[in-house]
Amino acid sequence: MDDALLIAMVGLPARGKTYIARRLSRYLSWRGHPTRIFNVGSYRRELVQGHQTQAWFSPDNVEARVIRLNLAMRALDDAFEYLRGDGSVAIYDATNTTRRRRDLVLQRCGEEGVPVLFLEVVCDDEAVVDDNILATKLEAPDYAGMERDAAARDFRARIEHYTRVYETIGDDDSSYVKLIDNGRKTVVNRVHGRVSERALRFLMVLSRVQKPVWLTRHGRSEYNDLDLLGGDPNLTDTGRGYARALAQHVKAHAPEGLQVWTSTLRRTIQTAEPLGYETFQFRRLDEIHAGICEGKSYAQVEAEMPEEYAARKRDKFRYRYPRGESYEELIERMDDVVLELEREHRPTLIIGHQAVLRVLYAYLMGTEREACPHLDIPLHTLLELSADLYELRESRVALG
Amino acid sequence: MDDALLIAMVGLPARGKTYIARRLSRYLSWRGHPTRIFNVGSYRRELVQGHQTQAWFSPDNVEARVIRLNLAMRALDDAFEYLRGDGSVAIYDATNTTRRRRDLVLQRCGEEGVPVLFLEVVCDDEAVVDDNILATKLEAPDYAGMERDAAARDFRARIEHYTRVYETIGDDDSSYVKLIDNGRKTVVNRVHGRVSERALRFLMVLSRVQKPVWLTRHGRSEYNDLDLLGGDPNLTDTGRGYARALAQHVKAHAPEGLQVWTSTLRRTIQTAEPLGYETFQFRRLDEIHAGICEGKSYAQVEAEMPEEYAARKRDKFRYRYPRGESYEELIERMDDVVLELEREHRPTLIIGHQAVLRVLYAYLMGTEREACPHLDIPLHTLLELSADLYELRESRVALG
Repeated sequence: MDDALLIAMVGLPARGKTYIARRLSRYLSWRGHPTRIFNVGSYRRELVQGHQTQAWFSPDNVEARVIRLNLAMRALDDAFEYLRGDGSVAIYDATNTTRRRRDLVLQRCGEEGVPVLFLEVVCDDEAVVDDNILATKLEAPDYAGMERDAAARDFRARIEHYTRVYETIGDDDSSYVKLIDNGRKTVVNRVHGRVSERALRFLMVLSRVQKPVWLTRHGRSEYNDLDLLGGDPNLTDTGRGYARALAQHVKAHAPEGLQVWTSTLRRTIQTAEPLGYETFQFRRLDEIHAGICEGKSYAQVEAEMPEEYAARKRDKFRYRYPRGESYEELIERMDDVVLELEREHRPTLIIGHQAVLRVLYAYLMGTEREACPHLDIPLHTLLELSADLYELRESRVALG
Repeated sequence: MDDALLIAMVGLPARGKTYIARRLSRYLSWRGHPTRIFNVGSYRRELVQGHQTQAWFSPDNVEARVIRLNLAMRALDDAFEYLRGDGSVAIYDATNTTRRRRDLVLQRCGEEGVPVLFLEVVCDDEAVVDDNILATKLEAPDYAGMERDAAARDFRARIEHYTRVYETIGDDDSSYVKLIDNGRKTVVNRVHGRVSERALRFLMVLSRVQKPVWLTRHGRSEYNDLDLLGGDPNLTDTGRGYARALAQHVKAHAPEGLQVWTSTLRRTIQTAEPLGYETFQFRRLDEIHAGICEGKSYAQVEAEMPEEYAARKRDKFRYRYPRGESYEELIERMDDVVLELEREHRPTLIIGHQAVLRVLYAYLMGTEREACPHLDIPLHTLLELSADLYELRESRVALG
């Protein structure tokens, strides 16, 4: 529980707390900090009979208030349980809109010896709040079978109840981040520690707008033909054929404003050529470095360096080629690429390499990081990834 | 002028604006954004006859006010001049404490097409302000020949004049960062763009406390004897002798709380062994990667790859070994190490490699980045670097 951290969300309903919690959870898990979200609303839906309409959320409803407090504490207890086990970060997804409630959270965390970072989401733009209600609340189980207008009215009344008692964080002794108006303004108070700082860095580039990311490996290279590792080979004729097919597909289907990123290695640059786009070459996108095994075949490695071959087989995620890299290190190298992707508001086509794309895919699709070395990213296949607020989508197009 | 940025400091005197400006300037220059500070106080001292006492800074002193405005505009004009030339970032080091003055800066920047980032330094802790006055102001040319108590009184009265008209930034349309109480709290508003974001990331770890950093290369290795590049060789007997001598010196002279960092390569780990410290191994501290030249001698490279040899000779800073790294890229790789050094409040001994230490040295001592490949960091020599508020110091100890 050395690195344990509780991130307690703060804010009125429909401000995007859950969206931010999910994005942050995915990112931190990918960085190697197992993270889980404890959403008090889910506890209510699971444990309280029937559907609750707005009156249930009124601060004047004494009976419901007791139940709500119990649910909140139950979620918090589960969060501690998680942190005592394998968990590193628990995101406590509740409104926590009163100072009193936050003091209770602080007190419980103090008892458990878990540091707290409050993450307040502030948005006073009614249009954005309305969008959030329409996009995420009306289809929720709470409003199953209810007419949309009535549901929206009910939800706005629920927000009203919270607004009456809402106190924004003003306590400068505690550790908090306030995200105001969707990235316009950020207030950072007493944020220390590696995990909090990483979370902060991500939050500062995170946008509500998610653009499609397309991933493809380079076309078939001379080394693919020879089954050799690494190097900087040229495309084969087949590989050039894929590059042309990719260009045709992009021409027909590319989202507007597409930008193209490649590595600095010939095979990705050559794959980009027929596109006719201005491309950005990132050294960070170069293939995993196989160190002293560069230019050798797997068969050669097995024959000449049986211990290395065996070590790699045992733990492909952590195995590092001598003077080369491991998948684990590759995630660290890809961190800047991921932050750059989040910072950009343009759809992006990344022409990369197998290991590099596995690592990016794991981030984009929320795959477990240890599974990276086993993800299937075949040659001559375009992966079109996109995301809604809460949903990740993938389609694979075989080309060439 | 593509990446041009004006960073305008804001804040009362003796809040540490100049210290922050200097640290930031050194960091941004090292990252490849040529940065210069335009300090209005220096313009006054150069252009206005005599020494000005506090009355000169009173808002009621109409004549002096005109002169002060002229000086401020003159410094600003020079900043634009710099940005039209080779400069990338101009730090405008003035108080800029009134909204009206900041509007003027915004207006001038608008005319010049230069984006502005306001950087406000807030500190209400009188003890810290007094420390700053004692540490930096009384020895300044303004008070040459004046008794210290009288000088301090005069300076406090000068601050009073600014306090009367001070308006903290509240304009949420502009781009600003507020640093409050020495890193406790940070407010970030509309900060966009690569240079601003880099500056921000640095500012968020920057501390007023500068701890000594000791740098040394590993002891003599088997590859040093053979004049070979890269690899992961062991220490020679001579190298082990240095490791023991280093341990003795550290035992006798190490600052309290020293931590020891090495790379992941054998020769630095072996050099750390006799110290008896717990050490942290950072892959980021591994030597510059010589790619396909690893394990070769310079003579071999010259003979077998004359074009590579010649290209490297032409531009040693930007030259990249095929499948390896350049010094320029090494700076990028060292960025996290530098931020980690700033974040840590402990003295640090880094046992590293020639190229890596050249790059760290350039940051720590403010050496021009293009000079990195030519810095002299000999074997068996300990570099003890330390810094005061405004002063960088180096001593070299030959050992073993």
